[in-house]
Amino acid sequence: MTNDTPMKLDSLWRGANVATMKSGQYSVIENAAIGVVSGRIVWIGKARDLPDYDAQTEHDLGGGWVTPGLIDCHTHLVFGGNRAGEFEQRLNGVSYQEIAKQGGGIASSVKATRDASEAELITSASRRLKSLMADGVTTVEIKSGYGLSLDSELKMLNVATQLGKQFPVTVKRTCLAAHAMPPEFDDKDAYIDYLCETVLPKVAELRVADAVDAFCEGIAFSTEQVERYFKTAESLGLPVKIHAEQLTSQGGTRMASSFKALSADHIEFIEESDVKVMAESGTVAVLLPGAFFTLKETQRPPIALLRQYGIPMAIATDANPGTSPALSLRLMMNMACTLFALTPEESLAGATIHAAKALGMTDTHGSLEVGKVADFVCWDVESPGELSYWLGGSLMKTRVHEGKRSEGSKNQGEPA
Amino acid sequence: MTNDTPMKLDSLWRGANVATMKSGQYSVIENAAIGVVSGRIVWIGKARDLPDYDAQTEHDLGGGWVTPGLIDCHTHLVFGGNRAGEFEQRLNGVSYQEIAKQGGGIASSVKATRDASEAELITSASRRLKSLMADGVTTVEIKSGYGLSLDSELKMLNVATQLGKQFPVTVKRTCLAAHAMPPEFDDKDAYIDYLCETVLPKVAELRVADAVDAFCEGIAFSTEQVERYFKTAESLGLPVKIHAEQLTSQGGTRMASSFKALSADHIEFIEESDVKVMAESGTVAVLLPGAFFTLKETQRPPIALLRQYGIPMAIATDANPGTSPALSLRLMMNMACTLFALTPEESLAGATIHAAKALGMTDTHGSLEVGKVADFVCWDVESPGELSYWLGGSLMKTRVHEGKRSEGSKNQGEPA
Ligand SMILES: [Zn+2]
Ligand SMILES: [Zn+2]
Repeated sequence: MTNDTPMKLDSLWRGANVATMKSGQYSVIENAAIGVVSGRIVWIGKARDLPDYDAQTEHDLGGGWVTPGLIDCHTHLVFGGNRAGEFEQRLNGVSYQEIAKQGGGIASSVKATRDASEAELITSASRRLKSLMADGVTTVEIKSGYGLSLDSELKMLNVATQLGKQFPVTVKRTCLAAHAMPPEFDDKDAYIDYLCETVLPKVAELRVADAVDAFCEGIAFSTEQVERYFKTAESLGLPVKIHAEQLTSQGGTRMASSFKALSADHIEFIEESDVKVMAESGTVAVLLPGAFFTLKETQRPPIALLRQYGIPMAIATDANPGTSPALSLRLMMNMACTLFALTPEESLAGATIHAAKALGMTDTHGSLEVGKVADFVCWDVESPGELSYWLGGSLMKTRVHEGKRSEGSKNQGEPA
Repeated sequence: MTNDTPMKLDSLWRGANVATMKSGQYSVIENAAIGVVSGRIVWIGKARDLPDYDAQTEHDLGGGWVTPGLIDCHTHLVFGGNRAGEFEQRLNGVSYQEIAKQGGGIASSVKATRDASEAELITSASRRLKSLMADGVTTVEIKSGYGLSLDSELKMLNVATQLGKQFPVTVKRTCLAAHAMPPEFDDKDAYIDYLCETVLPKVAELRVADAVDAFCEGIAFSTEQVERYFKTAESLGLPVKIHAEQLTSQGGTRMASSFKALSADHIEFIEESDVKVMAESGTVAVLLPGAFFTLKETQRPPIALLRQYGIPMAIATDANPGTSPALSLRLMMNMACTLFALTPEESLAGATIHAAKALGMTDTHGSLEVGKVADFVCWDVESPGELSYWLGGSLMKTRVHEGKRSEGSKNQGEPA
């Protein structure tokens, strides 16, 4: 192939196979090359088909497989304290009631998060973020929801914003003010009023959230309450997501679909009629095997139904201090295979292209195609299936965020 | 405190709390200091109680918790190929029968291991070993058992020996020639004869194994066959271990206990009378939650019984290409808590002091006490319970093997 003028590139990456994940499949390019300009992919294909080019930097990946950077589309990564102490107490036979009496459970995370400064929250979340990045994450969604007051919810969203500025990772921020009841409210409807009248408008005004989320469950908020909250979000131009049908079937997903929700998350107890509605609204199913595992749940999400209706299935860590202290998205890919019988290809799609859809960012992220952001990882594996096969392990060789190499491991990718 | 002559040290380590794991408990020393001479601990206690000393190097650990280096006492880390392809085929609906017809299962690992050179086996096992080390392992047991002929079993044991020389990790080698039937034998008794007459004597003569192991199960070898093999091992002065009662109760553990077996591993189906016998023989129970998880087993090892009889419980990865592709011992600690309801303290004891006992090395390893080898890890955690609490993640700050710092992560601890 010849051109009059060679293709100008900021960087060229070669020396590995690529699973582009275009259309949710491996869509393999063997012996590939990726050309990047201004952090975007401008050329991708077989290295032997490269046109003449003129690259400022050229990188030999040295074998292995490249995939899109992993996208963790559901985390509660920012919180004060942790609940390792409770985890230990429970295993030593202390009852849930006793722990609740001590102020444990989500109340303890709310208290610790409210008590912490932004700087403290950044420091503690950074450690967890670096773990996710060290296992291949280049985009992470971070929810608020341990503040439950205007100031502390804004504090959490600001911390999420700061993390995105300090680390080579793309952060999407979700306002989950309807996560639980704060101690100063007795009445759920009154709290929802407060969120609709005070919190959501301020969040929208300050542009500190990319989406709004709620926990719809008997132990949290009812479908009607979440609907009211979503109406406010919609009027403010914020897309919605929902924690639904995790412990019981409440119809939250169906209601959320009427708002064209980006995703319905957990959904172990979803019914077929609701799956049908998700298909119509283009809502992604976000599977959270870490929570399923940690809570020793037995009802699996209805994978066969989700496949039948063509619902894109994303996989996320649900990283949180209580029900899923998970710091590796790749481990969740293994658990999705082992616990939910996803195929490794579905798992990888769930942590890339479908996760991008759950965050409303498929135009720019989730697969390796011309025009998309150059977020990718080169792994020390002989097949992309190995990413789901191994339980743990350090498989990442090279991590590229917006066209720049940054390992994101403990001693790299530090705040600038 | 004063002395006429200050304590001479090669290195002094301070600036962290220590869970020494003495007697199988956290046995905490807050604000501790560890003094090392010739790779051994010569002083450990509260930093404020340090006598006058004169140290060649002094290290501030910068906070966190120190534990003994983790000991993975049951792995099949050396093998040719991997079985990610089978994992993927099974999840895509290909039957076990079809995979077996293609030469899959353990037979494929035997073929790939026989076909590989020592150098190739070192390269592939190195990647897995570095993953284990990056999550805190300082001692690893490695079994043969994919060779199943004199030459290929010796090749595997040589590879294990080489790994111990090339990396800052202590390797214990176990001859597991009685793992499965090699293709060239039809008769199990004839194969056991071959092991007793040819393989074990040569292994003993060359001193390439620290112990002998067998897979005692309906699908592998009978209690009588393993007993014959163990008699030979005993006559050659080699201690024994056993894979037993994983799928059914066969009495293998009871038989192995009569040889004062170092450990009985898996033991999901062990009965109370056999647990009693283990207590008398001082045999360690090695729990392998990664295999339990991967095989979707439902019968848990009888933890209450093991506690009642005071059996030390070790935890290991069982790292192998078929039933436990596990590359993180810390993840196994989480699984032991979540799946088997061990406490985090029991989990940590299982990956340190009890794992040392399963390898016959409690005199020198497994806890941090004066006289023991200075193998320890400093973790970025606020309590030792966090080591079992987090699912995945990069928590290791500093790794010390035989008194020397060596991170053991991807780009460090490379072959010299
Ligand atoms: Zn969540
Ligand atoms: Zn094994």
